[in-house]
Amino acid sequence: MRLITEVASAAGIHEEHLELYGKYKSKLSPSLWDELKHKQDGKLVLVTAMNPTPAGEGKTLTTIGLSQALNAAGVKTVAALREPSLGPTLGMKGGATGGGKAQIVPADEINLHFTGDIHAVTSAHNLLSAMIDNHIFQGNLLGLDPQRIVWKRVMDMNDRSLRSIVTGLGDGNGPVRESGFQITTASEIMAVLCLCDGLADLKKRLSRMLVGYDQLGQPVTAKDIGAVEAMAALLKEAVKPNLVQTLEGTPVIVHGGPFANIAHGCSSVIGTRYALKLGDVVVTEAGFGADLGAEKFMDIKCRQAGLTPAAAVLVVTVKSLKYNGGVRKDELHTANRAALLSGLSNMERHIENLGKFGVPVLVALNHFEGDAPSEINDVLEACRRLGVPAAVSKVWAEGGAGGLELAMELKKLLEQGEGQPAAFAPLYEDNLDIPAKINTIVTEIYRGAEVAFSPAAKRSLGIIEKLGLHQLQVCMAKTPYSFSDQPRLLGAPEGFTLGVRDITLSLGAGFAVIITGNIVTMPGLPAKPAAEGIQVDLDGVINGLE
Amino acid sequence: MRLITEVASAAGIHEEHLELYGKYKSKLSPSLWDELKHKQDGKLVLVTAMNPTPAGEGKTLTTIGLSQALNAAGVKTVAALREPSLGPTLGMKGGATGGGKAQIVPADEINLHFTGDIHAVTSAHNLLSAMIDNHIFQGNLLGLDPQRIVWKRVMDMNDRSLRSIVTGLGDGNGPVRESGFQITTASEIMAVLCLCDGLADLKKRLSRMLVGYDQLGQPVTAKDIGAVEAMAALLKEAVKPNLVQTLEGTPVIVHGGPFANIAHGCSSVIGTRYALKLGDVVVTEAGFGADLGAEKFMDIKCRQAGLTPAAAVLVVTVKSLKYNGGVRKDELHTANRAALLSGLSNMERHIENLGKFGVPVLVALNHFEGDAPSEINDVLEACRRLGVPAAVSKVWAEGGAGGLELAMELKKLLEQGEGQPAAFAPLYEDNLDIPAKINTIVTEIYRGAEVAFSPAAKRSLGIIEKLGLHQLQVCMAKTPYSFSDQPRLLGAPEGFTLGVRDITLSLGAGFAVIITGNIVTMPGLPAKPAAEGIQVDLDGVINGLE
Repeated sequence: MRLITEVASAAGIHEEHLELYGKYKSKLSPSLWDELKHKQDGKLVLVTAMNPTPAGEGKTLTTIGLSQALNAAGVKTVAALREPSLGPTLGMKGGATGGGKAQIVPADEINLHFTGDIHAVTSAHNLLSAMIDNHIFQGNLLGLDPQRIVWKRVMDMNDRSLRSIVTGLGDGNGPVRESGFQITTASEIMAVLCLCDGLADLKKRLSRMLVGYDQLGQPVTAKDIGAVEAMAALLKEAVKPNLVQTLEGTPVIVHGGPFANIAHGCSSVIGTRYALKLGDVVVTEAGFGADLGAEKFMDIKCRQAGLTPAAAVLVVTVKSLKYNGGVRKDELHTANRAALLSGLSNMERHIENLGKFGVPVLVALNHFEGDAPSEINDVLEACRRLGVPAAVSKVWAEGGAGGLELAMELKKLLEQGEGQPAAFAPLYEDNLDIPAKINTIVTEIYRGAEVAFSPAAKRSLGIIEKLGLHQLQVCMAKTPYSFSDQPRLLGAPEGFTLGVRDITLSLGAGFAVIITGNIVTMPGLPAKPAAEGIQVDLDGVINGLE
Repeated sequence: MRLITEVASAAGIHEEHLELYGKYKSKLSPSLWDELKHKQDGKLVLVTAMNPTPAGEGKTLTTIGLSQALNAAGVKTVAALREPSLGPTLGMKGGATGGGKAQIVPADEINLHFTGDIHAVTSAHNLLSAMIDNHIFQGNLLGLDPQRIVWKRVMDMNDRSLRSIVTGLGDGNGPVRESGFQITTASEIMAVLCLCDGLADLKKRLSRMLVGYDQLGQPVTAKDIGAVEAMAALLKEAVKPNLVQTLEGTPVIVHGGPFANIAHGCSSVIGTRYALKLGDVVVTEAGFGADLGAEKFMDIKCRQAGLTPAAAVLVVTVKSLKYNGGVRKDELHTANRAALLSGLSNMERHIENLGKFGVPVLVALNHFEGDAPSEINDVLEACRRLGVPAAVSKVWAEGGAGGLELAMELKKLLEQGEGQPAAFAPLYEDNLDIPAKINTIVTEIYRGAEVAFSPAAKRSLGIIEKLGLHQLQVCMAKTPYSFSDQPRLLGAPEGFTLGVRDITLSLGAGFAVIITGNIVTMPGLPAKPAAEGIQVDLDGVINGLE
């Protein structure tokens, strides 16, 4: 590992703009922005994926490896990534810092507490929660309806027992009511932190956040509760982006980590902006497959921040192609050409979809040991037939060197676009109403036939109507495994009905969350949690985190 | 503020041993210990207090100011303090970094997230909680009795609604059971962090922590749950002491912050040990008045860590003397000589008690604007009569300069003890049984006549007997306002019966918690929380935190 001061220096950042957290992590001071803001932006590249297997297809890995490869190819590149959450790290998935030779470091520290940003979100969120119940307890001057409080509590942990709880039991312990915890990454404050462009915008967004309704049905916000300034004080360091490096010394900004279902699943706007000033190319990612991740990246993050993506890299794997062709997850290591060819329909659909945003696409076949040469050929041949550039990526095994072909293809694609006006446009117009926005996504991206709203969702639409909130974007909360709301409807389904179970309002983030199927915002632990496999020796060296 | 690298350098710490958190905070690397461990220890001075008014008497302020004054007087001094908790900071009391000209800085950062130690304790604690419920959910191989789980959850927030809750409601969300949250500083992990002497001892103590009982009534520990190593990984940075400075550049180690009722209320053993190697004198504090704070400091912290205190400074104020003489808290600013003279009985009792530990005492009269010269004279005259050195401390208004007289008196006291064998001894022997230990404290320190155990406490004594746990120390959880368990029994009461309501086991910390009266381990917010008075401007400068 190089000292972070050296990584920063190589990226053109003077030491006075660093706020060090040990020798290998640093926050970037707002003073750096004053120096950078007049520079021209680099090109923004989104790494997204086809519909995944439960193990994931390696978007973070590819983002890291591609940034290493571009630098190795002489293109000054910065990666912009999300921060790992303790819940999955200690639960099922393990860390989120890449793997093999395509990793960001210090991985253990990034995976655990990092620079405390997620803890700060937890604190700010739960301060508001405590102040809401305290407001009711102290006399309820605002006339809050205890049955209609929508603001829950959060914890950065996978703890299913906290999903649904009753609080305030016992004498003098506040109003008795049903409530629950979400994982911190599902907090609206995390979404707000990632979409704001600075402390002033952060405060505006925190002020707007809906906490519940009063007894007349009027919305009550965080501002009404009087919590905004104290929350902003708790978040004032968290709003600064974090700088770390890849195993090959590439500068990486790791900042923010909203859930990819009830939030937009992208790293922070602030971090992306810093990265665009520091790199000629910025490689970033969005959660889940392109149906969710890329759509929200384009329609929410890029729209709100005025960003223009220059290209999208679609990560596919032989495994996920077979999975989408109907193979069960425990049989994915066996060759099955028919399934692979059938699963290509999923890849093709995503390529087509990305085109609808006006963004050129490159396919990255993330190579796994055991992929047969014939399987790889089938994928590359399909891409040729579709007229889409593609390359095999071996960044796990080889680091940047294993991504050189992908980097060269991307360079070519970006050069083709040079000098031409950007064709990028979000999918739907801001002035459409909420049902029309949902319908556009369902028919254009998911290829469903229609949308069915539950009674609860219809009630929510009524509130949206009454409050005049149609300018909100829509944030789809849907299974990542299928284009539809049914996890087992794989490949490229059509003609299905998408059921909307509920709609919630994230007024600070600026979107309505469209809840389809059974979306869990507080994961549980598996029978053998990842935590059980972690050890720390007496020198503080951690094993088993990755 | 000087750069923390400069403060460290002046204290003899080379930069290679620093792990910086920004420019003004640093963790001390274990490598520093290897360099320091063979040096001779400085002298350890405890700052404690008489029974306080609800506003507190300024122990932290005096500790900081005295360390400034000693340095100004040419004595190389380091202060060792507790870390502030977000609950009181955002709730009722405000920050805990001193005040006026006797402060530690950067105060805002220390009062908010600091270096993340308390967040790490929260995460480690709640990981264990989640793994306990998950263990039951996944089949309950250990046969845990869901009704006898003693391990709750924690949050670093004042949130009364979480005191008593029902978790696991709804389909597939784990066992339905009654539970609750404590504030993080009440977590046994905080006590363990503060009593351990390093990572190896930390793990041993975490392993021993009691989480509940199985269906046969046998204890189940954190080790049985399989959470120890992952908790230690989460705590591996938190175990390193933090270095900051006073407004006058005195080095201060701020590390750990256990509750002063259900825990021992002292800063960490590790931090104290580093401080003793760095300073010729170390000034430290313990929570609440001397009946609780000093007793636990001597009987728990010093005993477990093998520390020998060289002197105790007893903080008194004109207000607390009048309060103990029967004046109501809203009338403390009016002169009342009779009450003041009557309240001296409380001071006298504490002086006598401290003598029982073999530790010489110095009285610090913490000066408030409005204290009449005649009131001050009455206090100093009483000390003269008792043969106890005393000095007026004006460190709030004047910083170190306002504590010079106190510093000179302390210097004299320490010099008197030089060359003589230390007379220090804990109050009770380790081999007494638990009721006898309680009885010793109640009769010798509190001056009660007897102890009455509730049926629940008797059941707990039965378990202690059965499990052979008499070697534990006792950690008294009692109101800080009175020597007795009745907050309004002020002055120097005698002959009362102390009621023990319950006894809980902190096997990792090594003590049994003796619960008297109604001890709240999750505070609530007042009608106007301190959070409402906090603002942050667009440059990130916080107002209203102190």
